[in-house]
Amino acid sequence: MAIEVLRLGHRPARDKRITTHCALVARAFGARKLWYSGIKDSVFEASVKRVVDQWGGSFEVEHVHSWRTLIQGHAGKSVHLTMYGENKRIKGSQLIVIGGEKVPSDVYHLVDHNIAVGNQPHSEVAALGVYLNDVSGIKKKFSDAKIKVEPLKRGKKVVQLQA
Amino acid sequence: MAIEVLRLGHRPARDKRITTHCALVARAFGARKLWYSGIKDSVFEASVKRVVDQWGGSFEVEHVHSWRTLIQGHAGKSVHLTMYGENKRIKGSQLIVIGGEKVPSDVYHLVDHNIAVGNQPHSEVAALGVYLNDVSGIKKKFSDAKIKVEPLKRGKKVVQLQA
Repeated sequence: MAIEVLRLGHRPARDKRITTHCALVARAFGARKLWYSGIKDSVFEASVKRVVDQWGGSFEVEHVHSWRTLIQGHAGKSVHLTMYGENKRIKGSQLIVIGGEKVPSDVYHLVDHNIAVGNQPHSEVAALGVYLNDVSGIKKKFSDAKIKVEPLKRGKKVVQLQA
Repeated sequence: MAIEVLRLGHRPARDKRITTHCALVARAFGARKLWYSGIKDSVFEASVKRVVDQWGGSFEVEHVHSWRTLIQGHAGKSVHLTMYGENKRIKGSQLIVIGGEKVPSDVYHLVDHNIAVGNQPHSEVAALGVYLNDVSGIKKKFSDAKIKVEPLKRGKKVVQLQA
């Protein structure tokens, strides 16, 4: 199963933390890549790369100029997460499109499915997390990790793995 | 069931959107209140109030100075969401504590449970959404709403409710 995420309309000044959260959620729930449109942001890209270097896996981020071409050229299903969509889930490989506050209206027609995680305003970060949790679940193993958490009742424990 | 959320260490300049997302996620998944510590932020509070006025329900946000007293004085269970915690869920009424990047270490000892939504770095917004989705689910009815979404396959439809 290959899941990719497309984050629309990134603005570094306003969205850096939100887009970083989206990328880390995508990675933690097993997506292999986050594409993002809007303004290219090397600070954001580096912060995700640092996480991947330490915590493992092969998750990537890549800036895309023509996001419409990306959606249209995508071989599998495409899904737009929106509070205006239907409350359903699509299983298997897919491109998941998430917007910010202003989403171009043609997105609703370019994708195969418009899907809501509830029909109330909340957060594209939480919508992505809940949707991915339903579709693919939390990813358990990350290849080539340098560190991992050992879950504890109290406090923090991070263990070093092989060099 | 009464669920409340405590967001630690809000900084308006850096966290406005993240804390707003946390509040809206709390509301959408049925929490009744978000407390927040750190710097009091009337812009954040007003933005949540606008959502409640339009979309209904009785969700509140309130700034708290002494968050340790709030946790210790809480009558029911308290849960801290952290990537270092155990992968379990607590059902029923509870106070859910979420931090930012730097969480004071005594939090781990003040709460009843430290709970992870996966043990990888991702997002307190997504962690809160996934956890609440497991514990209480998406809230379906909001009293006194002025508007609501009618879910569509394509496009957006918002319907006006009674004045």
